[in-house]
This record gives sequence, structure tokens and C-alpha cells, in this order.
Amino acid sequence: MEPLNFGLLKEWLEEKKFFRVKDALTNRNEVDIAEFLEDLPPEKMAVVFRMLPKEMAADVFAELSVETQQTIIESVTDTEISQIMNDLFVDDMVDMLEELPANVVKRVLRNATPEKRAMINQFLRYPEDSAGSIMTAEFVDLRKTMTVGAAIRKIRSTGLNKETVYTCYVTDANRRLEGEVSVKDLLMAEDEAGIESVMDANMISVVTTENQEETAKLFSKYGLLSIPVVDEENRLVGIVTVDDAVEVMEQEATEDFERMAAMTPSEKPYLKTSVWALARHRILWLLVLMISAMITGGVLQKYEAAFAALPLLVTFIPMLTDTGGNAGSQSATLIIRGMALSEIRMKDALKVLWKELRVALLVGLVLSLVNYLRLRWMYPGNEMIALTVVISLFITVVLAKIVGGLLPMAAKMIHADPAIMASPLITTIVDAFSLVIYFSIAQRLLHI
Amino acid sequence: MEPLNFGLLKEWLEEKKFFRVKDALTNRNEVDIAEFLEDLPPEKMAVVFRMLPKEMAADVFAELSVETQQTIIESVTDTEISQIMNDLFVDDMVDMLEELPANVVKRVLRNATPEKRAMINQFLRYPEDSAGSIMTAEFVDLRKTMTVGAAIRKIRSTGLNKETVYTCYVTDANRRLEGEVSVKDLLMAEDEAGIESVMDANMISVVTTENQEETAKLFSKYGLLSIPVVDEENRLVGIVTVDDAVEVMEQEATEDFERMAAMTPSEKPYLKTSVWALARHRILWLLVLMISAMITGGVLQKYEAAFAALPLLVTFIPMLTDTGGNAGSQSATLIIRGMALSEIRMKDALKVLWKELRVALLVGLVLSLVNYLRLRWMYPGNEMIALTVVISLFITVVLAKIVGGLLPMAAKMIHADPAIMASPLITTIVDAFSLVIYFSIAQRLLHI
Repeated sequence: MEPLNFGLLKEWLEEKKFFRVKDALTNRNEVDIAEFLEDLPPEKMAVVFRMLPKEMAADVFAELSVETQQTIIESVTDTEISQIMNDLFVDDMVDMLEELPANVVKRVLRNATPEKRAMINQFLRYPEDSAGSIMTAEFVDLRKTMTVGAAIRKIRSTGLNKETVYTCYVTDANRRLEGEVSVKDLLMAEDEAGIESVMDANMISVVTTENQEETAKLFSKYGLLSIPVVDEENRLVGIVTVDDAVEVMEQEATEDFERMAAMTPSEKPYLKTSVWALARHRILWLLVLMISAMITGGVLQKYEAAFAALPLLVTFIPMLTDTGGNAGSQSATLIIRGMALSEIRMKDALKVLWKELRVALLVGLVLSLVNYLRLRWMYPGNEMIALTVVISLFITVVLAKIVGGLLPMAAKMIHADPAIMASPLITTIVDAFSLVIYFSIAQRLLHI
Repeated sequence: MEPLNFGLLKEWLEEKKFFRVKDALTNRNEVDIAEFLEDLPPEKMAVVFRMLPKEMAADVFAELSVETQQTIIESVTDTEISQIMNDLFVDDMVDMLEELPANVVKRVLRNATPEKRAMINQFLRYPEDSAGSIMTAEFVDLRKTMTVGAAIRKIRSTGLNKETVYTCYVTDANRRLEGEVSVKDLLMAEDEAGIESVMDANMISVVTTENQEETAKLFSKYGLLSIPVVDEENRLVGIVTVDDAVEVMEQEATEDFERMAAMTPSEKPYLKTSVWALARHRILWLLVLMISAMITGGVLQKYEAAFAALPLLVTFIPMLTDTGGNAGSQSATLIIRGMALSEIRMKDALKVLWKELRVALLVGLVLSLVNYLRLRWMYPGNEMIALTVVISLFITVVLAKIVGGLLPMAAKMIHADPAIMASPLITTIVDAFSLVIYFSIAQRLLHI
């Protein structure tokens, strides 16, 4: 299928050829239509949104950014709002309401049915980043005592929808979760079989307060399509579906990238974040690291006499500190990512140390050798300087790899996010050490 | 459900209480059983694997690492191999065969049915990292002319399985893809309705050679459960399912983390990678960056006279270069991640430049101010040195943010991976520039 031609569609809008626009949007995927709406000037958004067939409106609406959702809500009537809201899934609605300004939220809630309003109010109380905050309330629940035939009839009449993703949950009279059964198992079984005989009582479930990242990990570990969410009394209150889990995984990876580059993580995409917010997210860590680097500078001051006597020493500083920083951040990155994917656990600390040590010896040896040859070639006769640089480099690389490998685990141990122990912090720490090592060796070998 | 107690299970194995072990593994998730197998000494693996009920063996086998798969293959009979291979899905089998040594591959293929062997040989020919290499051949195909009732009967008799994930594909007599229909739509429709009336002819599909990362992005963009894969003649050859897409997404994010920390990406988890492989993945970039940093050192040499005259200048170098590196890598990381998620495109280059410039001015101003106050307090009377440092810092931050924002886009433009333009390279580039700026300003303001 051809992609939508945004330019042409906009021309048609200008020329008020609305039928053509409507025609072009028919049968298109809701994600593509939402992308087109986002690209329009605000005053055109509601015009195009109203062209959509009723059964698509809520699907497209769910894909829009909160800003665009707000623009549309502010330009349509209460009846239209009520129509959209009652077609929206609870999780999409909660996502939106968490971001909208209070007066718009009020107007939205006023136009929802009392049942939906009650449910939304309950959902809004789950802590941010919890399984409860990403779950949806739409699922098919069955009873153990039903037959497969009755269950299939119930599904056909209740209506499966995209959110339920083909797993039904078995509950008792008190809504306690007893098992799950996939539509596949129902279809494969005889109509007369009892649900209890086909259901899986050992299913994986989470409680509402479980962290959303841990919940998302279960999807990738077990290859699931949905996970039931229960309250403290094991009562089924909602389900998390794989599409929301994928979103959480992407978001958590993005947050790790941001933390590892010394930023406060942000929820919004780059182009939608204001300059002020971007600056705010960056300044704190830049200040902290700048002040740490000043301390490194203070270390250097102690050796002023050394490099005043032998200014050549200064020219090797960037090579030494950069290589140390890079060597350390390589190790830190592998460990941080390994921990994020649960491939590396706290009990592996000694294994990590032993592995990093051997890698460091190998890598340090190669780098030192290359450097030694280059120094002998470029500064013939300066044997002792070459030796100073090479020994310092070797020690720095080994130290950097051990610090880079262990600090993320240490951070985890004190319940800090390991991602903050990434290149910038490791670089700053290793810088100070490598300079002390360098000048101490220089003072001994060169007698300055 | 209680997690498996690996320690207790191993004790039972030692004491040859095999029935207890078998009992404890019954009804457990295949992922958990695989985790237990991985934790065993090689000589015990096949013993435990043989305890598994026939219908679970292939599911557990698919979750094992290639090393463990090989150990098991080498300790079981040809009949057992043939049993497992014929129960394995094609995509899991291809994953395994791509990694196994040739003699083991031969033995495996000898024990597969001729049909399966032919299919596997075809699948092994798809380029690595292509949609073809991650697709599976198991799916339900329907004809336009069928009724919904007949389609449901076909599904119930063919057998849906985990891999098909509830989407059936409609093909013509030449296996050309005509549309898709979800089991949900089939269940919601009347038995007498024709498939053509319920199918979606505007579905999303990919060709076998499409990049696997691009394919995975379609899942998260459109919230899909599976995507049909067609050949150049639009004939349906397989499907990619969401669980494989999730794996690709995690793997691609890991590769970006590794590239951004100046490493050659690796396919294996950290603890399973040998010391040699780890060292090899790290050494190339460390060498490249070390040599670049030597060039920076060469730049410094030009200003030997300056810092011989005023050694205090040297102590501000770490602060200046570190802050420049950090400021640049913040920008680079946001842009690289934004491009990986398709939130930032090439056409946004000017927007990025304008945004980074404004953020840089703000951030640079704050950092310079803090530094100025600190220098006035710590080095009273050295007005001109303070001015030199502060002006250099400001220019460095602005430059770093612009370089960091634009270089990843430039890399993309020449079809290189933007992720290589991350902190280490940006730091090295910015280092050289910031030192030139610093000493040029120092020479002018301090007349040295």
C-alpha cells in the first residue's frame, strides 16, 4: 500500500476538497492517520478528525499525542467527547488524563458514563511506573465450571477486542484469579470439555504495585501476549498487553541511554521537549561532573613543579585520560546493560571482576605496546618518558576496567540506578586516579 | 507459584532421586526449566532433559543456549534428535543451526524429515539480520472463497500454535498474499459470511530481505502480533511473530549501547562471551581513539611555551575537556536514540541545530557563571585567567552541543551507523577543539 501523501492531502484541505481527503483516509491504519493529524496546523485537526468514521475515531484518538488530543477535545462538542471517551480503552484514557490540564480532565470526566468515571478514578490512583498504571480493564473472564462450548459462546457475544489478545482468565465468585486459558486451547478442545480441564493454573501474574519494567521483562522472558494483574487479595483487576509492554521496554531503554549520558531522563520525544526542559535535564549532571573535574584539576596543581620542569609531560594527558575513560565506560556499559536485561546479577560480581581483570590485562598490553613503539619513534632518546607514559597507561586501563565493571554493581547494591555509573562519572573518577598515577611514576622515574 | 529451588533440585540429582526432580519440573514453564538446565554441569544436562514429557521437550530445547543445545544433541540418540527436531519450529531450528559447528549440523539435518530439511536449507539462505532470517513457516493460510465457518473448522483441525498468534493469512492459488484476518474477526462474524468480507486487504507486510530492525519497528509502531513475510513476487513464505520482534528490539538496543561505548557489538550475553572475544570487541576502538587523543596531545605541544610560563593553566584542562565531552555526548545520545526510534529524521537537522544552539547557550551560561564565581573566590586577583577559562568553557559547550547534535545525522547521511558518533568520538573531537580555543584565548588575554 502506498504511504499517505501528506503534502497532497494538505493541498486538498486548503482547497476544501474534503471528500477527497475523507476518501484517502478510508481503510488506512489508525497509526498512519494519527501521524497525519499530528502534522496538521492545530486549527485543521478537528476538521480532519471529524471526517473519520465513528468506529475509527477512538482508535485514531488513542494514537495521538496528548497535545493533539487536547486540541481536539477543546474543539468538539460534549456529545462528541462522550462518544470518543466511551469507545476508548481504559488504559489509553488513563494515559491521556494523567497528562491533561485539570480543566480539560474535568470536562472529559463529565462526559464519561458513571461506570467508566468510577473505573478511571480507581486507575488514576495506581502509582506511576506500576503495573496498575499500564493495565487495561477490558478482558474476558470465565468460570471453572463452564464448558468450552459455553466459553466460546461467551467470547463471541462479549466481543474479543484488540486489548484482550486472546487470553481469557478464570475467576471464582469473589473475582479471585484461578487460571488462564488461551483461545487457541479453547478452539483445540472439544465443546463438551470443562474449562478446568483446559485451563493453566500455573500462569504468571503480577500485583498492581509491581514495577512496570519488571512486568515488561516477564513478557520478553516468557514470550507472553498478556499478563493478568491482581490486587493484594489475588482478585483480578486488569491485564497488561504485549503492545504496552513493548512501549515500556522502549521507554526504559531510552531512559537508560539518557542516564548513561548524564541526563535526567525525560518522558517526551526530543522534538516535542522544550528548550527549557532540555536544558534543565542536562544542567544538574553537567554541574556535578564539572565540579568533580575541578577536583581533578586540583590534583594536577599538586604536580605543577613537575610539568613546569618538563612541559612535554602535559601533552600525554589527553591520551591517558581519554583512554582510561573509554576503557572504563566500555566495561560499565556492558555491565549496566547486562543488569538491565537480568543477564548479570549481584552474585556474579566476582565473575565480572575476574573477567574484566583478564580483559584489562590483554587490552592494556596491546595499547601500551602500540604506545611504546610510537614514543620510541617520535621521541628517540627519551626512554624514561616513554616508560612513564606506558606504565601509567597500563595501570590506568586495568584500574578503569575494574572500576567500570564494579561501580554499576555497587550502585545497585545501595539501590541506586546502575545507569548513573556510566561513562561520564567513570571518566571523571578515572581521570583523577590516572593523573595521580602518571605524575607519581614520573616523579620517581624522571626524578623531578 | 514458588520459583524452582535449583539447589534442592541439584541435591536430589546427586542423590539420584530422579522421580522427585521429574515431579518438581512437571507443569513448570519451559523458560524456567531451561534456566535450570543451563545451571547444571554438562554431564547432568541430558539426564534431566530426558525426564521432560515428550510434548515439552522441544519447547524447553528452543529456550536453551546453543552451547547447551549442542551438549544435549551430543548425548542423545538419533531417534531422540529426530523427535525433537520435528517438534521444533523452523525459526528456532534455524537460530540453532546458524551457530552450531558443521559436524553437529550434519547430524541434526540427517535426522530431520526431508520436507523439514528442504525448508531449513531454504531459510538458512536468507541474509543475517533480514526478516527472512527471523520468520517462521508455521501459519494458517485461508482462501478468499471460504466461509467463516469453514475457516474456523480449518483452524481447529490444522492446529493453531503459539507461533501463529491468531492471525490467518489469505492467499490465492499461486500463494500470493491477498489479505489477513484475525481469529477475533472470525469469531465475531457469522459462520456463513465469506472470508473476503471480513479480511483486511490493506495489511502491513515485509519482503524477506527487509532489515530485521525495520521489521521490529513496525510491530511497535502499529501494535501488531505478527507480520507476513513475502518474496519478490508477493508470495507468502512465512511470518514474523511479536516475541521474535521483541528479541530483535532488545538486541538492537544492546548493540546501540555497545557501539555508543566504542565497542564492536557482540551477539552473546556478557557472561557467555570469552575473554578473548571481549578484548577483541574493545581493542579496535580504543586504539583508534587513543591515536586521535595523541593528535590532541600534539595540539597541546604547540602551546608548551604558554603553560611553561603559566603552569596554572594546565589545572583547568580536565574541567574544560570533560565538560565539553559531557555536553557533547548528551546531545549526541538524544539524537542517536531519537533516530533509532524514528522520532528524529534527516529533514529535522535544522530544527535540531536550532534547538541545540539555544540549549547550549542556556547551559553554557549557567556553567560559566558558576565557574566564574568559583575562580574569583579561589584565585582572587587573577581576573584575566578567570575570564580565559570562562570564555573558553562557554565556547566549548556551545561547540560541543552543536557537534554532538549534528555528527550523528552526518553519519546517517553517509550511511554509517549514527551510534558510532557517541560520547567517545565526540569527546575526542571536542577535546582537540576546546584546547585550541583555550590556549588561543589565553595567549591573547594573558599575553603569553
